[in-house]
Amino acid sequence: MFSKFLLFTVLVAPVFSLWPAPRQMTTGSKTIVLSSSFSITVKGTAPADLSQAIARTTSFIKNDNMGRLIVGRGSTDAASFKKALQLPGLTLKYTGSGAIPSISTEAVQDVTARNEQYTLKIPADGSAATITAPSALGLFRGLTTFEQLFYTYEGTIYTAEAPISITDSPAYPYRGFMLDTSRNYFPVPDILRTLDAMSWVKMTTFHWHIVDSNSWPLQVPSFPQLSAQGAYEASMVYSKADVSQIIAYAAARGIDVMPEFDTPGHTSVIGDAYPEHVACQQTSGAYDDTVANEPPSGQLRFAVPATSDFAVSLVKSISNLFTSKWFSTGGDEINQKCYDNDAPTQAALKAAGLTFEQALSKFTVAEHAVLTKAGKTPVVWEEMVLSHNVTLSPDTVVLVWISSADATAVAEKGFRLVHAPSDYFYLDCGGGGWLGNFVGGNSWCDPFKTWQDAYSFDPLNGITSDQAHLVLGGQQLLWTEQSGPENLDPVVWPRAAASAEVFWTGKTLPDGTAANVQNALPRLHDIRYRMVQRGVMAINLQPYWCAVRPGECDL
Amino acid sequence: MFSKFLLFTVLVAPVFSLWPAPRQMTTGSKTIVLSSSFSITVKGTAPADLSQAIARTTSFIKNDNMGRLIVGRGSTDAASFKKALQLPGLTLKYTGSGAIPSISTEAVQDVTARNEQYTLKIPADGSAATITAPSALGLFRGLTTFEQLFYTYEGTIYTAEAPISITDSPAYPYRGFMLDTSRNYFPVPDILRTLDAMSWVKMTTFHWHIVDSNSWPLQVPSFPQLSAQGAYEASMVYSKADVSQIIAYAAARGIDVMPEFDTPGHTSVIGDAYPEHVACQQTSGAYDDTVANEPPSGQLRFAVPATSDFAVSLVKSISNLFTSKWFSTGGDEINQKCYDNDAPTQAALKAAGLTFEQALSKFTVAEHAVLTKAGKTPVVWEEMVLSHNVTLSPDTVVLVWISSADATAVAEKGFRLVHAPSDYFYLDCGGGGWLGNFVGGNSWCDPFKTWQDAYSFDPLNGITSDQAHLVLGGQQLLWTEQSGPENLDPVVWPRAAASAEVFWTGKTLPDGTAANVQNALPRLHDIRYRMVQRGVMAINLQPYWCAVRPGECDL
Repeated sequence: MFSKFLLFTVLVAPVFSLWPAPRQMTTGSKTIVLSSSFSITVKGTAPADLSQAIARTTSFIKNDNMGRLIVGRGSTDAASFKKALQLPGLTLKYTGSGAIPSISTEAVQDVTARNEQYTLKIPADGSAATITAPSALGLFRGLTTFEQLFYTYEGTIYTAEAPISITDSPAYPYRGFMLDTSRNYFPVPDILRTLDAMSWVKMTTFHWHIVDSNSWPLQVPSFPQLSAQGAYEASMVYSKADVSQIIAYAAARGIDVMPEFDTPGHTSVIGDAYPEHVACQQTSGAYDDTVANEPPSGQLRFAVPATSDFAVSLVKSISNLFTSKWFSTGGDEINQKCYDNDAPTQAALKAAGLTFEQALSKFTVAEHAVLTKAGKTPVVWEEMVLSHNVTLSPDTVVLVWISSADATAVAEKGFRLVHAPSDYFYLDCGGGGWLGNFVGGNSWCDPFKTWQDAYSFDPLNGITSDQAHLVLGGQQLLWTEQSGPENLDPVVWPRAAASAEVFWTGKTLPDGTAANVQNALPRLHDIRYRMVQRGVMAINLQPYWCAVRPGECDL
Repeated sequence: MFSKFLLFTVLVAPVFSLWPAPRQMTTGSKTIVLSSSFSITVKGTAPADLSQAIARTTSFIKNDNMGRLIVGRGSTDAASFKKALQLPGLTLKYTGSGAIPSISTEAVQDVTARNEQYTLKIPADGSAATITAPSALGLFRGLTTFEQLFYTYEGTIYTAEAPISITDSPAYPYRGFMLDTSRNYFPVPDILRTLDAMSWVKMTTFHWHIVDSNSWPLQVPSFPQLSAQGAYEASMVYSKADVSQIIAYAAARGIDVMPEFDTPGHTSVIGDAYPEHVACQQTSGAYDDTVANEPPSGQLRFAVPATSDFAVSLVKSISNLFTSKWFSTGGDEINQKCYDNDAPTQAALKAAGLTFEQALSKFTVAEHAVLTKAGKTPVVWEEMVLSHNVTLSPDTVVLVWISSADATAVAEKGFRLVHAPSDYFYLDCGGGGWLGNFVGGNSWCDPFKTWQDAYSFDPLNGITSDQAHLVLGGQQLLWTEQSGPENLDPVVWPRAAASAEVFWTGKTLPDGTAANVQNALPRLHDIRYRMVQRGVMAINLQPYWCAVRPGECDL
């Protein structure tokens, strides 16, 4: 047993560089060279998005031009090329019933209902490789794995570890990334590029924090004044066509776009078009940090019936733009002092005979009712469960953000949860304070969250085995006070790939070793270099000297 | 006096957005619109690089398409356009003797001998603007100021603060940026783009840390094996032509390229071509952190006469590639244990009857002798003065890096110094540890050095008035363990502009107020937006909401 394990490690470890690591894998040591006539075929009729995925995989294999990350970049493999067998093709086999569904159809199913499992085989005898899966998503995940198995040395495309047999499926269904497009705007191509990179590491969910207090970049058909008045500039608006394009682009890559309309806080900008609905809006003058967590202050007067109706109608209109089964109504950082000072709110509470908390619950129930009616699952930030007395449907999903420790309390209340903790997963931390005249100030969530921090996250820490089913997965997040198109890729990649492996692979690598930053690093380098080859500006994790010498820069 | 000051602030502050701020400036409140026939002319014959600078200034004014960073982006200025006088042109007047010298000639003079002063006037009566200077560099600095004075609103290019009168010259001559091209490689276009951005904030010196232990990306004519064996890849080499291009490009933009060949430490890679010259080179296997500060270990056997001769010859060859009057031989982080264990070193010390320190001094004197003979000034890192007993020429320039507090000790020893302190100016800090298996580790120089940190640096802290003349300036620096072309711009800009103002403007703005992060922020936003317009991926400092509302996001 021990000797087998050692053998496995020695033969496989240097070449194995998939990200995320598959759940089960056996490999050999034979080199197989890609035939010049290599092609990918599908048993049955491929839906359009699967055909497009196949075309991308073919392109990546041929154009990644990725040399193995060792000294010589694969020169030592070259001796084996001449007598190596050729891989004639890859065949995709759908094992579900009926015609092969589209990736896009499956990608927008409830995240807990999707099937991503697949089996991938590259024989050592020169016969075709196969990917077998009971779903289009499974076939697509298999393709994503397949395209990471090949290296190029002086024009020869090869894998050095045949026979390869992989049986794979994710540990958690929700593997996401959140982008805030309100604090600073990101053009559509930046979002599409981000979706591409997400798909390369098998993520399932793009949590789109579209709007916030700063700007309203979303064109909502029934409420055109919101973006007309609240977008930063006319050019900084996501039209209905943009949204549809983003959803379709994501879905074709196995990603669901979960929209967020954060309420009742973080809504200052609504006051630009509808001042009657916003309390303590900062329209000019200095920032008052007693009524908001950051400028500009301003929150929906949720206790006022007309405002509640407005917000509920807006939730409905926004959710209609999206195909996702999930919708986040936010609910973080509600500032009570703002409402305490707000005459319309106080009058409304008095008229209705409701306390602040009762009114908040009534408002949230009303918002969620339209979602439930549309067959959607409501998602909220953790305060809705931990800080307020809000009536929530038991299927509500809770985003844990303030501290990873808060997952315990959410699970104890019986809610399903997604890990999004600032102490592990906030990509914006550590860049210094951004408020003006804040000399020498650091960011509130210092220090910088390294990929190692994210990678060391334990999804079940503080969770009992009885509660484990409540943990749906997790995501890294980018709040964009100090970001924009200029640094989107460098801030996000390859760091956000860390959680993608945590929630796909779990704690054990396919060779039985425990996942840790040491055995992750060479593989993370690998996917980072592939990202760069494919046009995503993922940053160097180490000097190139270290990247091609796994282990030699370990402390 | 008080009322005058108030008036000045109210009228000028919102429009004034030069970076670095000039030393003296008076402005009015008249709008002057750029004539469609606007042109820049030179009294006398303009050298080619001045003509090119004029073409760039003309292009920036016309293409920056920069709206004022206020709500409406200048819409409130539009009312004044109709009755505004037109600016017919700008005239450059050289007040030195003889023909106008080239910028490039002046830029490679000793940094302390350059003259950058200029006077800029934009009259309010519709007559031409003028820049007057006794040097080509002065005319160029004036152009750089001029191009920041104009905004564009719906096609109209204008300045809203005529008459403008600026008399300007820098507080310190050395205003630099250091880039490490050894840990990770940067293609020539990345360096050229960086030089452009440096010139926009009037920097004088590109400190090029070309080579280090990781890789040798420099083609040295007499030592071709260094790059043949030591470059990361054949494509990652600066040819002699590349170096000449970089020097010429920099010089035409008023920037001197100060090369560094760091010795005797940080030289592991030399052992790839010349193993006999390198002690304790890490060629394979684990990193031993007792013999180097970071992998790979390896230092020149400076005590061995053949190695000393080799290094001196190499210093000579490298310095011949550069036109700068300065050359850095480095001298930081020499690890003595490496030499204690090194038989050739110990044998050489014994044979020569020298102590370690005596041998180090002899070696350094020999290196510097070839520089002095070539009319160049040696530059060293602070350890050469503070940690070792090395004989140095009194004109040696010392780079203070370990701590800003060390400037005092360097000045007390009577050496001229350049501020490059890790606690204020290291752009790479705060990104987390990069050594493998370093779980949850932070960078050694945490936290992240914000622009506010850099901006708050006091060049004369701990320096007596008698020693003040020893302070030549300072620079921000990028060590590139975690950087590459993918994040060069976002890591460097606009942060590195902070020191450019600290060392140009000094502690007082032209309106008499003390420079501080609060009055700097709107102007730093401005130059950041101009950088983005010109193709440099400088990052957002705040949400756009804040950027167009100066002061409203102050804490």
